[in-house]
Amino acid sequence: MNSSIIRYILGQVIKIEGALMLLPCLVGCVYGEHSWLYFAGTSAICILLGVLMTYRKPKSNVFYLKEGCVITAFSWMLLSILGALPMWLCGEIPTYIDALFETVSGFTTTGASILPAVEPLSKCVNTWRCFTHWIGGMGVLVFILAIVPMSGGSSMNLMKAESPGPSVSKLVPKVKSTAMILYAIYIALTLFEWILLMIGGVPFLDALNTSFGTAGTGGFGIKNDSLMSFSPYVQWVVIVFMILFGVNFNAYYCLVFRMFKKAFTMEEVRYYFIIILTAVFIICCDIRDYYETFGETLRHSFFQVGSIITTTGFSSADFNTWPMTSKTILVLLMFIGACAGSTGGGIKVSRIAIAFKTLLKELNSYIHPKSVKKIQFEKKPVEHDVLRALNVYLISFFLVFASSIVLISFENYDLETNFTAVAATINNIGPGLNMVGPTQNFSFFSTFSKLVLIFDMLAGRLELFPMLILFHPTIWKQLFHESKKQVS
Amino acid sequence: MNSSIIRYILGQVIKIEGALMLLPCLVGCVYGEHSWLYFAGTSAICILLGVLMTYRKPKSNVFYLKEGCVITAFSWMLLSILGALPMWLCGEIPTYIDALFETVSGFTTTGASILPAVEPLSKCVNTWRCFTHWIGGMGVLVFILAIVPMSGGSSMNLMKAESPGPSVSKLVPKVKSTAMILYAIYIALTLFEWILLMIGGVPFLDALNTSFGTAGTGGFGIKNDSLMSFSPYVQWVVIVFMILFGVNFNAYYCLVFRMFKKAFTMEEVRYYFIIILTAVFIICCDIRDYYETFGETLRHSFFQVGSIITTTGFSSADFNTWPMTSKTILVLLMFIGACAGSTGGGIKVSRIAIAFKTLLKELNSYIHPKSVKKIQFEKKPVEHDVLRALNVYLISFFLVFASSIVLISFENYDLETNFTAVAATINNIGPGLNMVGPTQNFSFFSTFSKLVLIFDMLAGRLELFPMLILFHPTIWKQLFHESKKQVS
Repeated sequence: MNSSIIRYILGQVIKIEGALMLLPCLVGCVYGEHSWLYFAGTSAICILLGVLMTYRKPKSNVFYLKEGCVITAFSWMLLSILGALPMWLCGEIPTYIDALFETVSGFTTTGASILPAVEPLSKCVNTWRCFTHWIGGMGVLVFILAIVPMSGGSSMNLMKAESPGPSVSKLVPKVKSTAMILYAIYIALTLFEWILLMIGGVPFLDALNTSFGTAGTGGFGIKNDSLMSFSPYVQWVVIVFMILFGVNFNAYYCLVFRMFKKAFTMEEVRYYFIIILTAVFIICCDIRDYYETFGETLRHSFFQVGSIITTTGFSSADFNTWPMTSKTILVLLMFIGACAGSTGGGIKVSRIAIAFKTLLKELNSYIHPKSVKKIQFEKKPVEHDVLRALNVYLISFFLVFASSIVLISFENYDLETNFTAVAATINNIGPGLNMVGPTQNFSFFSTFSKLVLIFDMLAGRLELFPMLILFHPTIWKQLFHESKKQVS
Repeated sequence: MNSSIIRYILGQVIKIEGALMLLPCLVGCVYGEHSWLYFAGTSAICILLGVLMTYRKPKSNVFYLKEGCVITAFSWMLLSILGALPMWLCGEIPTYIDALFETVSGFTTTGASILPAVEPLSKCVNTWRCFTHWIGGMGVLVFILAIVPMSGGSSMNLMKAESPGPSVSKLVPKVKSTAMILYAIYIALTLFEWILLMIGGVPFLDALNTSFGTAGTGGFGIKNDSLMSFSPYVQWVVIVFMILFGVNFNAYYCLVFRMFKKAFTMEEVRYYFIIILTAVFIICCDIRDYYETFGETLRHSFFQVGSIITTTGFSSADFNTWPMTSKTILVLLMFIGACAGSTGGGIKVSRIAIAFKTLLKELNSYIHPKSVKKIQFEKKPVEHDVLRALNVYLISFFLVFASSIVLISFENYDLETNFTAVAATINNIGPGLNMVGPTQNFSFFSTFSKLVLIFDMLAGRLELFPMLILFHPTIWKQLFHESKKQVS
């Protein structure tokens, strides 16, 4: 185990977090809020700690998937532990576990909140909440890959561990360039939404925070009622951008580099839109008597479908009061999730598509036992490795899911609350149904249940393996063994 | 497609059903109930139809897995359609769809009922209900394999399609002998339970019907309150036999032929008992304040765990009133199910075990990337084929599950009811939670939802593929094409 590279990259991560905290700090100064001090303080600690940890260069830049996973899991945990500090220290979130829940929910772009109301928060705290979505959306390590010079081919193992989807493809041969292109597209889309929201009359900072929440497909809002009180124009802008941020970023890459045909024939993106339109159609029929005009019905259907499938978690209406068919469709969308290579969570459209194709192939093999065709996805044959990884992913998904439901069932809430609370956190959505519905929050859970849900959020964002591997005793043995060696 | 063999075997199935209907007929005569006439009539129709269908021998005895699946699916549907007739004609179940639901629930050993009360039923109708469990438990086609002379190696394809579990092993080289041994063990165990129940003071016919329900891991009872009003002795007898019928029958085969070491080291059976004991322990702790003595707590825990994991569905207590942790554990057990090669349903312990091992192997491969060990189960390496089949099984399971929940959500009942209604039918258990809890029934569902649940019960019993393959247009094209050719 190359533990010096782990230390080094973790140091970089903390340094960057310190730097990023200057944004809420600035907001606090501008609006004359005293909370900026806590952000400044934590930022200083982060940078100092980061500098200390990166002072000694790692002995070797080579590392494997195992280290990639450990680095990713530790980075996200460390980010959250430090990121929760200012919100707790300034007293706006009174207990540390709640601040941690809120921060993990932010970085993992879940958007589940323990706050009964967000409007009393100071602007700098709320900016930090929304900003964590934006940071977590594209991934912190991808950011590091984009800016920190790292030689060697090992960096791909970091990208593999952090990026969502059944297989990671480099857009260009160099990992560094891939990461830079991804971040450029991300920033451009965010800016574009920010401007459109301001045109719609949303104030400067509110528009920025809403854009952060949309871009990361997070879901923290600036109002207690999420986006219910905003104008139809603003809601439509958010709908469009939520759906856009759920698209595989490879499609944008193709568009930017004028590979139009490739961009418009991407299978995953096509399925993604088919699922959205089908869901909107069914829900429109189902809730036709709930709203006065067809326009309103369509808008609320699109908003909720877009918000849930991309796992953003904003809401324009309290879908907990909708009929059961609509609620069931939304719960299913929670599991499907957005495209791989987007900022959204869930199982991902490509995994679902490959799973379907596997099933169809098996049915066909019963009828034509001698055919030996391979499954095709995105015009390429799906390799055995990808299928095995998919299999393992689904198994671990249901394992983590089932264990979490048992663990939070100790509190004796109803099955709908428990089931959707776990579904909403492991898929990084935010609101569930019943007691965790869109107008409710997660504060009533005990500390133990909150820890379980925090684990689920991290496991969901990192696609299970980086978190599950921490349960393997060998990892810890190797880590301690290495550290001892380094000390002696 | 060899459609003449399909016709021939279906004919055999109907003939046998006609013969089996003589049991309720006899019961009706003995107890002087007029309903026996309808059983006699339907029996005559079945035998006549069967004789007509088997009059012409099939042109060829060779068939493949495709025909095996079609025969299995059609057999089970035909059995249910004809088996429902007498219960409807005699007027004790007023609508045909309800009678069909009840019969499918019987043959698939689900035990979900549309009857608000079973005590007003005549003895012959109730005997038929319970007898369907016994017939469906071991499988009708296995029965045919045991008694109808069929040459050629094709019969294995029937057994593969009907028997539960990830892989079918013949106990002895000949399929016919395997089927006979299985039925012999099945009959012996049923007889043994019958005698023990009679010793406990249960009347002759009630003891027989309860044994039928236990042996098939079905769940239809003779009292409105299932087994709640029986004595602790009777409840313990039923507990022991429920758990015994959930054991892989290969273990009994080994015991009978004195391969004790092999019998006691079967991995699946070991895991099955570990799961049962763990679940009982957790539930005992959870419901410690619900009952007066520890003995009672232990008995009710064991009863419900044994009943749910073997997918029997009897109840000794209304577990719908238990705390959430116990209910969640029971819902999980619904999915795990009994051992492969038993009469129980669910996903099966062996599949869960292999899934776990796949996950562990993947975690290990992150840490030791160069290791290429195969997964071992029951001391044999698990072949790639079995893993692929497991993968496809899990995918189709969740596909059928999700679609069913959406389809029955049209009725606007709560998520807990919908979720557990589908879980209880697809896993062939019987009762779910809330509106389909152990003291409730399924009669309130619409005809459409009942059809969905009927499909789920059949799909669950036949392990999905034989039912799913009927959706493939090629199957129907081939069938019609063949029939036309035969007519011309």
